[in-house]
Amino acid sequence: MPEQITLYTAKICPFAHRVELALQEAKAGFTRFEIDLANKPEWYAPQVNPASKVPAIAYGGPQVSPDQPSPDSTKLTESLVLVELVADLFPESTILPKDPILRAKARLFIDAVSTKFVPSYIGPVVRGQSFEPFFAALLDLQALLPADKTFAASDEFTVADIAIAPFLARVEIWLKNDIGAYKEGEGKKAAEYLFEGDRFARLIRYFEAVKARDSFKATFHPEIVREQYAARFAPLRAQAQAAAVAAAS
Amino acid sequence: MPEQITLYTAKICPFAHRVELALQEAKAGFTRFEIDLANKPEWYAPQVNPASKVPAIAYGGPQVSPDQPSPDSTKLTESLVLVELVADLFPESTILPKDPILRAKARLFIDAVSTKFVPSYIGPVVRGQSFEPFFAALLDLQALLPADKTFAASDEFTVADIAIAPFLARVEIWLKNDIGAYKEGEGKKAAEYLFEGDRFARLIRYFEAVKARDSFKATFHPEIVREQYAARFAPLRAQAQAAAVAAAS
Repeated sequence: MPEQITLYTAKICPFAHRVELALQEAKAGFTRFEIDLANKPEWYAPQVNPASKVPAIAYGGPQVSPDQPSPDSTKLTESLVLVELVADLFPESTILPKDPILRAKARLFIDAVSTKFVPSYIGPVVRGQSFEPFFAALLDLQALLPADKTFAASDEFTVADIAIAPFLARVEIWLKNDIGAYKEGEGKKAAEYLFEGDRFARLIRYFEAVKARDSFKATFHPEIVREQYAARFAPLRAQAQAAAVAAAS
Repeated sequence: MPEQITLYTAKICPFAHRVELALQEAKAGFTRFEIDLANKPEWYAPQVNPASKVPAIAYGGPQVSPDQPSPDSTKLTESLVLVELVADLFPESTILPKDPILRAKARLFIDAVSTKFVPSYIGPVVRGQSFEPFFAALLDLQALLPADKTFAASDEFTVADIAIAPFLARVEIWLKNDIGAYKEGEGKKAAEYLFEGDRFARLIRYFEAVKARDSFKATFHPEIVREQYAARFAPLRAQAQAAAVAAAS
């Protein structure tokens, strides 16, 4: 029987969303504490995560109020490490395939998400650069999806899906609401190309299956995510335009 | 009982060395095939690893000659994925801690190796830049070693040690033999600072424990590694000096 789990998280954050998905899939009991990333509590870095990021888990120790963390709990970080921890603590969940080869395939998918897909959206969304490398990364990702399975590694919803789902969900929010550093209107154009054309049909079918999952519905809050990103990314468009002007002069 | 394992590897490569260490620790039977990275066989990329890198494993399928890979084996890549695969295929080995929290700590150490330590040697060794960020990364790594344990996660030799050992071994070879893009003599000076001063005493004590491990002795070939790096890194010093001149003019 696992000890107490306190999750420090934030609804906006895709990395933290991964751990919420894993805990939900594992039907784990846990205490959820929302960290306001725009205004972090002073105790958070010294007492929970020196890197001052979410997600973090305080595991074990006495049952305390999350804003008064006990020195006797073990503090753990890094979303993918925490997802594997949840799989290890709740072996009856199906998020980690039992078959070692399927498990390796799920981890290879996660590696592609970390090294190729996640870095690819920074260009257009945060820096206002071309969408092309981002679309190329999405095509590579789509090519990794098995043609005859519902999810990324098998017909089960696994760690592979947990690694990518929070990012696809945020891409949809950014582009459809034109939130990002790109020029006004370019997000909506990219959304049309991505969600309505034929080129990404397999990826979008996969994304629909992810969005239909109960754990996803229970852990994703599109309205809050949209509002917080609209505020947080608001300065980016002007910054990207200023940088482009400076580079050209 | 696991199926047949063929490992495509290269003695020079630290990533491939990780998988050899894992297989050795697990006492796994496997077929070893050396890939000459300076002159890769034509069949390797199309039939084993499209990225044309080592390590790769061909798992299962018929017992064939490694240079005639069967389309019926599963091809798997990425050193850390393969190390976890070996741990999953041979659960009686001790390379993956049984305790979920210790396992998470081992994976956090690996995350620091991947995101902080591995990128840090590229600057001085491959580009001829300052050693300072490299020493800073080594100090951070040293700080993660438990004071009262032999190895990085516990008194057992685990995936955490497998992730770092091949890189520490190559750092020693490079610096003590002055192989790298830095100016002549700077490698030996860095080696003295690293291996003979007090600053890295805990790290060097740890490295000595790693080098005394049977699996390490069986899988590391210092003379071959030195010779191959001497040839491969020979052009780097001149390139770094040319780049410095170009940047200054």
